[in-house]
Amino acid sequence: MAERIRIKDIAKRANVSVGTVDRVIHGRSGVSKKSRERVEVILKEMNYQPNMYASALASNKSYMFACLLPKHEEGEYWTEVQRGIYEAMSAFSDFNINIEIAHYDPFNYASFVQESQSLVNKELDGVLLAPTLPSYTKPFTDALNQKGTPYIYIDSNIAEEPALAFYGQNSVQSGYFAASILMMLGHAPHEIVIFRKKYEGVIGSNQQERREVGFKRYMQAHYPQCTILELDLQVKNETDDMLMLNKFFQEHPNVKNGITFNSKAYIVGEFLQKEKLDDFNLIGYDLLQRNVACLKEGGIKFLIAQHPRLQGYNAIQSLCEHLILKKAVNPINYMPIDLLTKENISYYNIR
Amino acid sequence: MAERIRIKDIAKRANVSVGTVDRVIHGRSGVSKKSRERVEVILKEMNYQPNMYASALASNKSYMFACLLPKHEEGEYWTEVQRGIYEAMSAFSDFNINIEIAHYDPFNYASFVQESQSLVNKELDGVLLAPTLPSYTKPFTDALNQKGTPYIYIDSNIAEEPALAFYGQNSVQSGYFAASILMMLGHAPHEIVIFRKKYEGVIGSNQQERREVGFKRYMQAHYPQCTILELDLQVKNETDDMLMLNKFFQEHPNVKNGITFNSKAYIVGEFLQKEKLDDFNLIGYDLLQRNVACLKEGGIKFLIAQHPRLQGYNAIQSLCEHLILKKAVNPINYMPIDLLTKENISYYNIR
Repeated sequence: MAERIRIKDIAKRANVSVGTVDRVIHGRSGVSKKSRERVEVILKEMNYQPNMYASALASNKSYMFACLLPKHEEGEYWTEVQRGIYEAMSAFSDFNINIEIAHYDPFNYASFVQESQSLVNKELDGVLLAPTLPSYTKPFTDALNQKGTPYIYIDSNIAEEPALAFYGQNSVQSGYFAASILMMLGHAPHEIVIFRKKYEGVIGSNQQERREVGFKRYMQAHYPQCTILELDLQVKNETDDMLMLNKFFQEHPNVKNGITFNSKAYIVGEFLQKEKLDDFNLIGYDLLQRNVACLKEGGIKFLIAQHPRLQGYNAIQSLCEHLILKKAVNPINYMPIDLLTKENISYYNIR
Repeated sequence: MAERIRIKDIAKRANVSVGTVDRVIHGRSGVSKKSRERVEVILKEMNYQPNMYASALASNKSYMFACLLPKHEEGEYWTEVQRGIYEAMSAFSDFNINIEIAHYDPFNYASFVQESQSLVNKELDGVLLAPTLPSYTKPFTDALNQKGTPYIYIDSNIAEEPALAFYGQNSVQSGYFAASILMMLGHAPHEIVIFRKKYEGVIGSNQQERREVGFKRYMQAHYPQCTILELDLQVKNETDDMLMLNKFFQEHPNVKNGITFNSKAYIVGEFLQKEKLDDFNLIGYDLLQRNVACLKEGGIKFLIAQHPRLQGYNAIQSLCEHLILKKAVNPINYMPIDLLTKENISYYNIR
């Protein structure tokens, strides 16, 4: 690490006040020609890098960022991501950043196309997006590249169309890990079930698809003889879900271990609690309130978490660092794969 | 949250430059009497809270902190805590803080008494200590209280003698959690083993003792019939340890599950690997390099981690916030209880 040069040290060497150095650095008036020259020579000698933070504060420029995220209801996974985005907006308010959040229907690719096109037509300084399928995401990122607008991926990465930065879990590894935990939890069962949520055949999330890839990769490598059942629940119909779950458990009374890759494990967990299927081991993702309640009451045995609020915050921070502070930004930022039970969840919420 | 008042806004209202407001706030020269008065009226009107950070930077005061930590070798648990302490010292170097680290022998209470007495005789602005047994810690904290020197506990808390702040895991809950994982991992075995490390009968760490309390509390509540064997290894003699481990596994060939509450799980893990006891499930604590190597190679199945570097960093930050920035400090700061396997450890090192 290069040693940091402090304004104090410059002032001492130039034999002027800290305020004078400050004024020279920011090009403000109120400094004698002699002092200014002396300070400038020393700045050069010491190879002083201007403090971009202070320069940005002194500037009057404002920045417009847009976020394109999946449509969701209050209290769902994306609420936490948005909370992090708003926290960053507040933390960096000195830089005059404004943020607009647009939403697309994750089960309808046309919705992503429409919303992204409307963003392309705006004057934006930076974009944060949760990508949909690569083929639908590419026209948007191509347009942003052409305009020179930096963009950040959140949730899932598209390696072939690299963004300024990516924030999210390594989904494949996360699914691989989840499989190892489920097999341990269930004492290496012969039959397990994957619960999905689909709408007209669409899963609506790259992350969920990739978690399943990793999960099956682990199963293939370590338990190729284990039967993997699949139950596709509905996205917008909880009553139908209950009927389907009932039917499934009647037909498969010996299946005692399962997983969901979407964030609504509580749909299954609450069913298990209602039906008193206490010996069923369910693993799910993300700390939605209803998931956490299930975890504490036993309907879910493990939740895998990934700091969504921090993802939202860090993504906006990266845009600020790149655009305003001219700092280098780390391109791939994998979040930890955190495993929570009712015994350790109370201590999780640290930043 | 109160709305933040920005220097920019004050400058706008007073119709002066940002630099002028800055000079008034920090009592520097170069401002006309008229401007100064106008700015002061507006500062009062807007109920401006001086920016302690800027004031501290402008001040010439320096601070002397002392840390009293267990003696250890390079690469052991406390190395990471010290790394965090040095990172904080560098991050807050603008405040002129100096840090001295003293060490005590954790297996010899007289050593704590001696080292702490020598610190009491120094002129210190703040102290960070890893407490030993409460009865030996109290004379030190009493003396610090009498001198009005703020102190911070790291690793284990002493609730009856509260410090300005505590950083560490909830040890009892951590042990309780560890027991739940071990019983799951071993498929509810009838016999398990606790490996300790002692020197002349002393465990040398409040944390380790409390983890064992929590562990046994879980076992009593959920598996009271499970036999808990105990093997006390030596602290300073790895050759003896190998002999004792050999003897133990010859006498107890059916024990397949065990745990260590100290940070040297690798002593057992490396033995298991050498002896090809692959079916033994070992859980340990902390991410020492040798522990992580065992985890990746299978000698350890789970490691529980607690961000030691962050603890050291945050503890020093708290002293700075309290003493220099006059901020309120959160008194109890429990670290997360993080569970790592070879499948998720690569993604853990995020701050």
